[in-house]
Amino acid sequence: MEIGIYGLGRMGANMVRRLLRSGEHRVVAGNRSPGPVDEAAKEGAEGAYSMQELVDKLEPPRVIWSMVPAGEPTEKTLMGFAELAQEGDILIDGGNSYFRDSVRRASALRERGLRFLDAGTSGGIWGLEVGYCLMVGGDRSAFEHVEPALKTLAPPDGYAYLGEAGAGHFAKMVHNGVEYAMLQAYAEGFEILKKSPYGYDLRALSSLWNHGSVVRSWLLELAERAFEKDAELQSIRGYVEDSGEGRWTVLEAIEEDVPANAIAGALFARFASRQEDSFAMKVIAALRREFGGHAVKEAGPGGGG
Amino acid sequence: MEIGIYGLGRMGANMVRRLLRSGEHRVVAGNRSPGPVDEAAKEGAEGAYSMQELVDKLEPPRVIWSMVPAGEPTEKTLMGFAELAQEGDILIDGGNSYFRDSVRRASALRERGLRFLDAGTSGGIWGLEVGYCLMVGGDRSAFEHVEPALKTLAPPDGYAYLGEAGAGHFAKMVHNGVEYAMLQAYAEGFEILKKSPYGYDLRALSSLWNHGSVVRSWLLELAERAFEKDAELQSIRGYVEDSGEGRWTVLEAIEEDVPANAIAGALFARFASRQEDSFAMKVIAALRREFGGHAVKEAGPGGGG
Amino acid sequence: MEIGIYGLGRMGANMVRRLLRSGEHRVVAGNRSPGPVDEAAKEGAEGAYSMQELVDKLEPPRVIWSMVPAGEPTEKTLMGFAELAQEGDILIDGGNSYFRDSVRRASALRERGLRFLDAGTSGGIWGLEVGYCLMVGGDRSAFEHVEPALKTLAPPDGYAYLGEAGAGHFAKMVHNGVEYAMLQAYAEGFEILKKSPYGYDLRALSSLWNHGSVVRSWLLELAERAFEKDAELQSIRGYVEDSGEGRWTVLEAIEEDVPANAIAGALFARFASRQEDSFAMKVIAALRREFGGHAVKEAGPGGGG
Amino acid sequence: MEIGIYGLGRMGANMVRRLLRSGEHRVVAGNRSPGPVDEAAKEGAEGAYSMQELVDKLEPPRVIWSMVPAGEPTEKTLMGFAELAQEGDILIDGGNSYFRDSVRRASALRERGLRFLDAGTSGGIWGLEVGYCLMVGGDRSAFEHVEPALKTLAPPDGYAYLGEAGAGHFAKMVHNGVEYAMLQAYAEGFEILKKSPYGYDLRALSSLWNHGSVVRSWLLELAERAFEKDAELQSIRGYVEDSGEGRWTVLEAIEEDVPANAIAGALFARFASRQEDSFAMKVIAALRREFGGHAVKEAGPGGGG
Repeated sequence: MEIGIYGLGRMGANMVRRLLRSGEHRVVAGNRSPGPVDEAAKEGAEGAYSMQELVDKLEPPRVIWSMVPAGEPTEKTLMGFAELAQEGDILIDGGNSYFRDSVRRASALRERGLRFLDAGTSGGIWGLEVGYCLMVGGDRSAFEHVEPALKTLAPPDGYAYLGEAGAGHFAKMVHNGVEYAMLQAYAEGFEILKKSPYGYDLRALSSLWNHGSVVRSWLLELAERAFEKDAELQSIRGYVEDSGEGRWTVLEAIEEDVPANAIAGALFARFASRQEDSFAMKVIAALRREFGGHAVKEAGPGGGG
Repeated sequence: MEIGIYGLGRMGANMVRRLLRSGEHRVVAGNRSPGPVDEAAKEGAEGAYSMQELVDKLEPPRVIWSMVPAGEPTEKTLMGFAELAQEGDILIDGGNSYFRDSVRRASALRERGLRFLDAGTSGGIWGLEVGYCLMVGGDRSAFEHVEPALKTLAPPDGYAYLGEAGAGHFAKMVHNGVEYAMLQAYAEGFEILKKSPYGYDLRALSSLWNHGSVVRSWLLELAERAFEKDAELQSIRGYVEDSGEGRWTVLEAIEEDVPANAIAGALFARFASRQEDSFAMKVIAALRREFGGHAVKEAGPGGGG
Repeated sequence: MEIGIYGLGRMGANMVRRLLRSGEHRVVAGNRSPGPVDEAAKEGAEGAYSMQELVDKLEPPRVIWSMVPAGEPTEKTLMGFAELAQEGDILIDGGNSYFRDSVRRASALRERGLRFLDAGTSGGIWGLEVGYCLMVGGDRSAFEHVEPALKTLAPPDGYAYLGEAGAGHFAKMVHNGVEYAMLQAYAEGFEILKKSPYGYDLRALSSLWNHGSVVRSWLLELAERAFEKDAELQSIRGYVEDSGEGRWTVLEAIEEDVPANAIAGALFARFASRQEDSFAMKVIAALRREFGGHAVKEAGPGGGG
Repeated sequence: MEIGIYGLGRMGANMVRRLLRSGEHRVVAGNRSPGPVDEAAKEGAEGAYSMQELVDKLEPPRVIWSMVPAGEPTEKTLMGFAELAQEGDILIDGGNSYFRDSVRRASALRERGLRFLDAGTSGGIWGLEVGYCLMVGGDRSAFEHVEPALKTLAPPDGYAYLGEAGAGHFAKMVHNGVEYAMLQAYAEGFEILKKSPYGYDLRALSSLWNHGSVVRSWLLELAERAFEKDAELQSIRGYVEDSGEGRWTVLEAIEEDVPANAIAGALFARFASRQEDSFAMKVIAALRREFGGHAVKEAGPGGGG
């Protein structure tokens, strides 16, 4: 089929590649800056150096897949294409948008006669080879129209229609919340192993656990790779970003009255990992000095807060 | 090789089967009660109706694998065989023993000239077909001696020598702690999905996530099976036992100063799942009534605490 | 001074009483339904049976204190008075509103020439005797104008101007978040004491801790009272509501990247206390059956959730 | 009455002072090193430069209060005095011992005909002025014998007999667990306030909350003092020690199946505060790089952990 991909970052560029490699699709590849467009064109895509050009190079009903960061960039991209598209065209948001934004956008686009899909996309840098797991919500007819591309992008059985607008991004949000807590599960386990008196080889143990144990998983296979590169992780700081979906999962848990200690704990551990110093812990140190005369550590010259 | 298995519960009986099926081992199967011995004998094992008989039917250096519950039963079994065994014999504890007990037992057995292995065993009811992941600590020469049996019991690459006595059970303990938190991760995610307005088909979503997503795992494959049998889990109560290893993992985290919010949170969620009523929550309800006049729910006739 | 109080629930009625008792204020007391107005009138207030009447009975610049539930009722009350008030009048929200609503309302009211104060109010049913702790944000000139009433309502040093609009309700929100975690702290402690082998008298122990120990507090004094009434809390179910501010505190912690395990854990414990059955725990029970053949509890005829 | 105090650290020395100031007791003050003995002698105590001398200077039945650190020092002190004491003498452990040790010691001392009390002591550096909250377990006749000293050491109603051996230290353990979570409650709240856009004066807000609010407490009075000395706590690092009792409280919660997320979370926050870098967080950073190509922070030259 024919599809336009807008946003040629790592994920978008790899999706273009995967679509092209199949030999089954005509791909128009657009991006705000021209470099990645040149690149994609070299690999067989038709380059589009503007949103207008991307729209012009597709036949109606057009399929335009936005693969830009969530928030303002996605808002601008989708609303920009909404101006240029015509009735019956299909806009897809493959980014990590908040599902409430997707619900709102689906409604705004529907009023213009456009069809919207929110396509939660998992797979990271492995998607090019393995395929992307695609969780799709929104207009059902649009889903059916783009199914050939979804089939190419995903591994076998790796895409599904999950329900009305927002269902895709909601599922992706929870997926990432689960991912946070799974990573935390392994991470706590490895730290306990590392501090044990047994001097475990964590690469070997990850590998062992991946053969027949209850905790075997793809993430644990990646752990094996990570420990292979750096057995003690000496080159890496224990500093972990978060991208929004873990937060939203906790907000949603609170909205729904779900006790979510593991996911929230995983999120808070990331917050803590990024703090130079913790004001909360300063408070406790100060109070312990007040009531017990316990010694405090003085903040160094570069101490902060 | 030649091996005695003592304790023919579900795990032990299946291990006997897996050893026999390979056609490579002579297996003497013992148990406290005779029924399971008869059963094993029918399937090709040599039955031993007492510990003495099991010892008598093996050639020195004997290999005796205990597969009985942790705690008192394991203590009795190992110390019982210690009385009957002779120098150079090998005793293996394949149960879920506390690693500190294994350290102690290894030392006691060593004083008698016996060799000990602590073999943390994962795989559950799937081990018969898939093989058991075996995490082995203890006497290295003993490990080498029993390796042919380990090779049969485990899937390819599914067993390893991890270090001195206790290293096997320590690794198994942490494995289970990680498992607790992974289960909690999925469980929280599924509850958030279930309470969403999207009416997700959780079996379909589990299946989808298993194809290309970051959270794919063996446990998630089992979730797919569980939701296939009972889409809403209506037949099951949210009541979860714990077997000891989750607790020990948290104790060890505390011993080592490791912040383990996810594993501890998973353990505490199990505790809460088993409470008819929570005294802590009664206290809060009572205090809220005291300061704010907030209504409390009165305990019913069967209410308790 | 002259002040109108609208909303004669428990808190509002008691505030009217406290203002009247001082003999220093003229209080116009209004309410949607007439009963509480009659009551207040008997105790010396001037009754107002409609918002219009309340406005009519006050001299400009009017001071109108809304004491109705947060959300829709507060929105309607404030916006209703905004229609009736005239430039320079002062509207005060003493309810438990979300601080973001207060920021928005302050701005909307300012456009109409009205002055707004958000007055976070703590003290519960004890406020009548002890005084209310008042955390006030908003228009500074308005704060100064109403200070005589604040002085009467609060205990000595029990009111303060905290900053621009929202500062009062933000401080009250965090106050309640802290309260959640403090209650949880005591509650966990009392449950551990209760399950100990020592058979503690929890009233006596609460009393003891209130005399010289580090954890003495007003809440602990209330615990003493609660245990005095019902030593084992047998008459109360462990079922705890939450009013919104605990949730908002966790949302704000997430907004600010603050690790807030204690406050979030306290909130989640309340969620759990209200669940008949936990879907998350059903998932774990189901998965344990799948991998280990562990027994599950079957849901009873009334099982659900 | 007549009492020997052994261990003249900050707590022990202040207890000697408080006993002497009352004018009601004869105090023999002993210590391993002579300096504090000289000091106590100057203030009116009779100095004892050895355990033997302390025993010699007391009339039977002797009352000997050990005020040394928990663990080995307490073991040595109590067992040392057990050698020197005679039947009917009373040994008191006022330190922060693990209640299981107290149970064991009570039994060992009883076999020698000695009476034992475990006296959990709260009050810190304020005890001298305010009095110490004393939670006492052990031999009831011994409690009655030493009651005059307890009355002097405690504020009014600030001591009690709680039950058999261990009951005192168990109560003190839980007291400290509650304290951990209360400190964490305030600490999280203050961090959320500090990061808000309202620029709160935390000293003023602590003071405000102490006048009529639900969260008023002695710890919050100390917070007011701490913020008065250093409004932003710039001089203090967010590094918090723990002394054992928080850990034991969590161990006991696990022993009793009590969900204790707030206390455990508070303990883990202290662990995290002391980590230069978190291995768990390194694992997560490494895994995120593996699956998503997310950037990691490289460890600096001094990186470790």
